[in-house]
Amino acid sequence: MRRPELIRTIAELRARLAPHRRAGSIIGLTPTMGALHAGHGRLIEQARRDCDIVVVSIFVNPIQFNQAADYQRYPRDLDADLEFCAARGVDYVFAPPEEEMYPAPLDTCVEVARLTDHLCGPHRPGHFRGVTTVCTKLFMIVQPDKAYFGEKDAQQLAVIQRMVRDLNIPVEIVPVPTVRESDGLALSSRNLLLSPGGRRAAAGIYRALQAAETALAAGTREAAAVQKAALEVLAAHPEIRVEYLQVVDAVEMQPVPVVEGPVRVAVAAWVDDTRLIDNILWRP
Amino acid sequence: MRRPELIRTIAELRARLAPHRRAGSIIGLTPTMGALHAGHGRLIEQARRDCDIVVVSIFVNPIQFNQAADYQRYPRDLDADLEFCAARGVDYVFAPPEEEMYPAPLDTCVEVARLTDHLCGPHRPGHFRGVTTVCTKLFMIVQPDKAYFGEKDAQQLAVIQRMVRDLNIPVEIVPVPTVRESDGLALSSRNLLLSPGGRRAAAGIYRALQAAETALAAGTREAAAVQKAALEVLAAHPEIRVEYLQVVDAVEMQPVPVVEGPVRVAVAAWVDDTRLIDNILWRP
Repeated sequence: MRRPELIRTIAELRARLAPHRRAGSIIGLTPTMGALHAGHGRLIEQARRDCDIVVVSIFVNPIQFNQAADYQRYPRDLDADLEFCAARGVDYVFAPPEEEMYPAPLDTCVEVARLTDHLCGPHRPGHFRGVTTVCTKLFMIVQPDKAYFGEKDAQQLAVIQRMVRDLNIPVEIVPVPTVRESDGLALSSRNLLLSPGGRRAAAGIYRALQAAETALAAGTREAAAVQKAALEVLAAHPEIRVEYLQVVDAVEMQPVPVVEGPVRVAVAAWVDDTRLIDNILWRP
Repeated sequence: MRRPELIRTIAELRARLAPHRRAGSIIGLTPTMGALHAGHGRLIEQARRDCDIVVVSIFVNPIQFNQAADYQRYPRDLDADLEFCAARGVDYVFAPPEEEMYPAPLDTCVEVARLTDHLCGPHRPGHFRGVTTVCTKLFMIVQPDKAYFGEKDAQQLAVIQRMVRDLNIPVEIVPVPTVRESDGLALSSRNLLLSPGGRRAAAGIYRALQAAETALAAGTREAAAVQKAALEVLAAHPEIRVEYLQVVDAVEMQPVPVVEGPVRVAVAAWVDDTRLIDNILWRP
């Protein structure tokens, strides 16, 4: 088990990757904010299967946090992350300091409209602009052939796919399924922040999505009825405060009144002081 | 004199360029809207000197026109442009139809703030967003090592340089000096739209900038006094309607009250129904 090479600067990463690119190697990027868990593990393992060279970026991106407190307490553990990457055969870990990514106040942003109008968009002003801007920077720095994003963050995935299409960025976006704990809770670095009681209650989020799935499988097509089935499950958990629970079409992320094509049932909820999101994909 | 290869689709251009890139060739891009003149010629000649492969893109980009009439009457002459490129040893002319660049409504934009707050920015809402978005697309399609932009459009040049810096786009932006007619008028495709009388009067624009330069060279440091010297020249031409005339710092494009570092004196003016811009760079 060889530790991956830890790289701190853009110039050094470009210098390391250039010979691989000249040799025609397929380069895969898994962008992360660290605090790696089995969900990231699945992204990395997929990249390892598909690509000759695997780069994992670890950067807690300040411009995508709409709340300073959330940024401050976001979990960080680079040593554990390096071990995690070593165990999965990662070639390069790119963990730049903030001043390497933002050496001067940023005047430029990349923004995706419409797909960000619902779900997390209105609740986290500036969040997706921060995500699309930093992902563009990472794509320009690494110039990967493929980049891996989790379906747990389904709106982020749709937004990145749209950005890549609209701007002709030469990268293939590979979606990777959500990994769950045995009780159904979607893996997230933020789960580390939950109290024991909050952690137990949080499993209710996925049970609510399963109730929506059951309703859809039983033939329910009114989005309001699907949402009601899920919200009834959440109502049984006073520890869970729902921010949104919505049925949206799976590509454009727009709310649909009636389910006619592929949809995501997406939820954001607060448990303790932590915001959790999850979703399921459903095809009629 | 070999005609350059005319390419209409993104896929075909990428296929043509891939072997050059693998072979380590330096690729240069000159983005244009066609109606090529000696100003473009200087961009292309510089690219030809610096690069192994020269690509000229010709695309009248609808999303950077804030007035539909201006887009409609913008000069277009692809046959003449191909001859022009052939005479200068261009390898590929990329002239995509509109549906190739915008196959679906665009949800994504690239935007540069602050540097677009003055000069043309407030007078042409959405213009720079259209420019930065299409240039990002062209950079992603061509993946050039170097790209050539004229100093005549000084604010555009500064905005593109900032975008490339902020987003880490792996391209070197090469500024190329303005080319002028014998009476000083900066070359522009829009000069073709002037009446004979308007064309004669338009030379007053550069004479006004020269008056500003004379004032600066004589030691004037108050921007208001520099601007007054230039405006007095323009006042003698009733055919010229000034939109702005301003002294800005040469990097951030912010108005300065007193000249202490490198500045641009920049002007936009209407002659007949045509909007012309010009500028000079001055270093103390």
